[in-house]
This record gives sequence, C-alpha cells and structure tokens, in this order.
Amino acid sequence: VGAAALSPAKGRRPGPSDARATILEVARRRFGDLGFAAATIRAIARDAGVDPALVLHYYGSKADLFAAAMRLPLPLAQSGELADLARRDPERLGEAVLRTVFAVWEDEAGLAAWLGLIRSAVADERAAAMLREFLADAIFHPIAEALDAPEADRRVALVATQIVGLGIARYVLRLEPVATATPEALIATIAPTLQRYLTGD
Amino acid sequence: VGAAALSPAKGRRPGPSDARATILEVARRRFGDLGFAAATIRAIARDAGVDPALVLHYYGSKADLFAAAMRLPLPLAQSGELADLARRDPERLGEAVLRTVFAVWEDEAGLAAWLGLIRSAVADERAAAMLREFLADAIFHPIAEALDAPEADRRVALVATQIVGLGIARYVLRLEPVATATPEALIATIAPTLQRYLTGD
Repeated sequence: VGAAALSPAKGRRPGPSDARATILEVARRRFGDLGFAAATIRAIARDAGVDPALVLHYYGSKADLFAAAMRLPLPLAQSGELADLARRDPERLGEAVLRTVFAVWEDEAGLAAWLGLIRSAVADERAAAMLREFLADAIFHPIAEALDAPEADRRVALVATQIVGLGIARYVLRLEPVATATPEALIATIAPTLQRYLTGD
Repeated sequence: VGAAALSPAKGRRPGPSDARATILEVARRRFGDLGFAAATIRAIARDAGVDPALVLHYYGSKADLFAAAMRLPLPLAQSGELADLARRDPERLGEAVLRTVFAVWEDEAGLAAWLGLIRSAVADERAAAMLREFLADAIFHPIAEALDAPEADRRVALVATQIVGLGIARYVLRLEPVATATPEALIATIAPTLQRYLTGD
C-alpha cells in the first residue's frame, strides 16, 4: 500500500499513466487466466512491456496489484495491522477484525466492491478460486502466522465463515433484525464468536 | 411434510399429475411476481383452475408449496422438529440446527439446490426478497416463537448469519481447512456459537 501515493517517474515512454493502466489490464487478464498464486509479477511486467521493478514501484506487492486490478475493497494496510495485533494483543483481535470489516461495508463504494466480489465468486468457479487464493495468501496466512495458537489457519478460516455470512445476511438477504442493527450492536454480539475461534480452546 | 406421500385422487380432469404440475407452475410465477408473503393459496388455486383445498391436499401448506415450486432443499419437516426442540430442550438446539443443515449440504441434490438458491439470491434482488420472506415466515419465526428467550428473532437471525457463511466458505469459496473438515469437526467447533446466539446472555 502507500505505492499509490508515490509520484510515478516522469518523462518515460509509455507515459506513467499509460504504463499503470497497461499493467492493471495485463494483471487483470493474468490473474483471471492463472489465478492469484500462479500469476507472477515478472510475467505481468513482461506482457505489459515494463520492468518488474516498475510494477512493484507502482503497486508495492503482488497482493496490492491484485487488489488494484480487481478493485478489491480489502484494506491490505489494515490486514497488516491485524497481523500486528494478532502478535501483540490477540485477545482484542476478534473485535478489531469486525471493526475493519464494518469500515469497508459501511462505506458505499466499499460495500459495492465487496458485493461485486461475492457475486462473482458465487456465480463463477474461477472467480471463487482466485478470491480464495488471494484471501489465503494475502490476508489469512499473515494473520494466522502472527497468531500464537494451535491450528491457526483453521481459526482464521472459521472467522471468515462468520464474516462472509454476516455480510450476506445483512446486505444481500437483508435478514431482519440483522439488516438494520447498528454495527456497534452487531460487534458486541459477534466479536466474542470471532474471539473464541481465534484464541479459544 | 408428508403431503407429497399422499396419493393424489384418481380419475379427475384435469388428471392429478397435470393439476399438480399446473399448480407448481402457477405458484412459481405468483411467488416470483409477488414474493412469498403477498402470494396467496387462493389466487394460485384460481389461476390454476382448481379448488384451494386441492392445493392444500397436494402440498400441505403455503410454505411447502413454495418449497416445492422453488425446489428448495429446506427440510420443512425438520424445521418443525427444531421448533419443538426449541421449546423442550433449547440447550441442544445449536447442534441440532447444524446437523439438519449438514444433512442437506452433504447430500448431492440438497447441496445443488441450496447453492442454486444462494446464487439466485446473490444475483437478483427479487429472488433475495422472496427467500428472505420465506425464511422469516416459514423457518425462523416458528423457531423464534418456540424459543423462550428475549430478542428471539434476533437470535435466530444471528444463527442464520453463521450458517450462510459456513455454507459459502465450505462449498463455494472452498476455504481450507473448512472445505475439507468433517461435518463432525465443524459441528463441534461451531455448535457453541449457535448455542450462544440462541440461549446466551
């Protein structure tokens, strides 16, 4: 993250905004064809006619490039913060995860992007595979690694089950009273579930 | 349910299997146009050219007719049993709900129907509204009514958030290790969540 705030180098051909757009277009195609795991920065750079270093200069990491190419509403910076929290103060992680997710959902553009992502994953097996690989590598695994608990991958995946279901019940099915409850009320009820999955027996 | 097990009356015109098929076709259209709540047995019977009593004879109830018309994998008989359990022995309800849901999911036809339902609800707002009304009226409300606990509707809706998310994470996104865990292992971990939602503080 942060890469978006850097000024692109000036005076090149193709111009920086062309190069950025080309990289995104190539990345979208490569990730779509190969999935998140098999697509490489090197191959994307080659197809876009730029140096791999320029891709990393613009986008920071493969996960950030994927998020940009797919217009993902996933706050990668926050997922790094959650991994830090998993290490420092794991007993607060359940609530922090929910607050991070609600910050996306309660933002109009964030919600639209999240719903788009779920819709394509539910409709299309390749989109589901791409999302699964990305979530596992870029979000879940760093948090699981930071969590000093047995079966950490399983714990993080269980958290994901509750979050995906909460989002779909609230914003797609609009089940009452979950649909109109305040985020605070839902956080108070659901954070203990996530906390039990993360650090319980 | 049981209605499906009754032999249709013989020797009528239109023949019983024609009448059943016509009722289903009309029901599918009416529920699709009006939603679950606003469509009535009386109007469906009128459009199908039969007596409302025949609709109930064949299908038992509006909820069962809806389930048949939409090819729903929702075990309505079991949802009655769950309501009974909510009354008699609510401390076992969390696990019983999960076992009922896994019986649908781990059956090939049940899973296909469940996924079809989720796919249409996620893709289409009217399908989502229809599913929401049906779930609320036919499944959630009877269980909530039987549950002697404050905010029972909210409790049952919270259970739904965890179940929907578990199904999508396991069978659509196929997040590991949730995708390949045994139902028993998942029931052991997740039943306490449902139980807390149903009867916790």
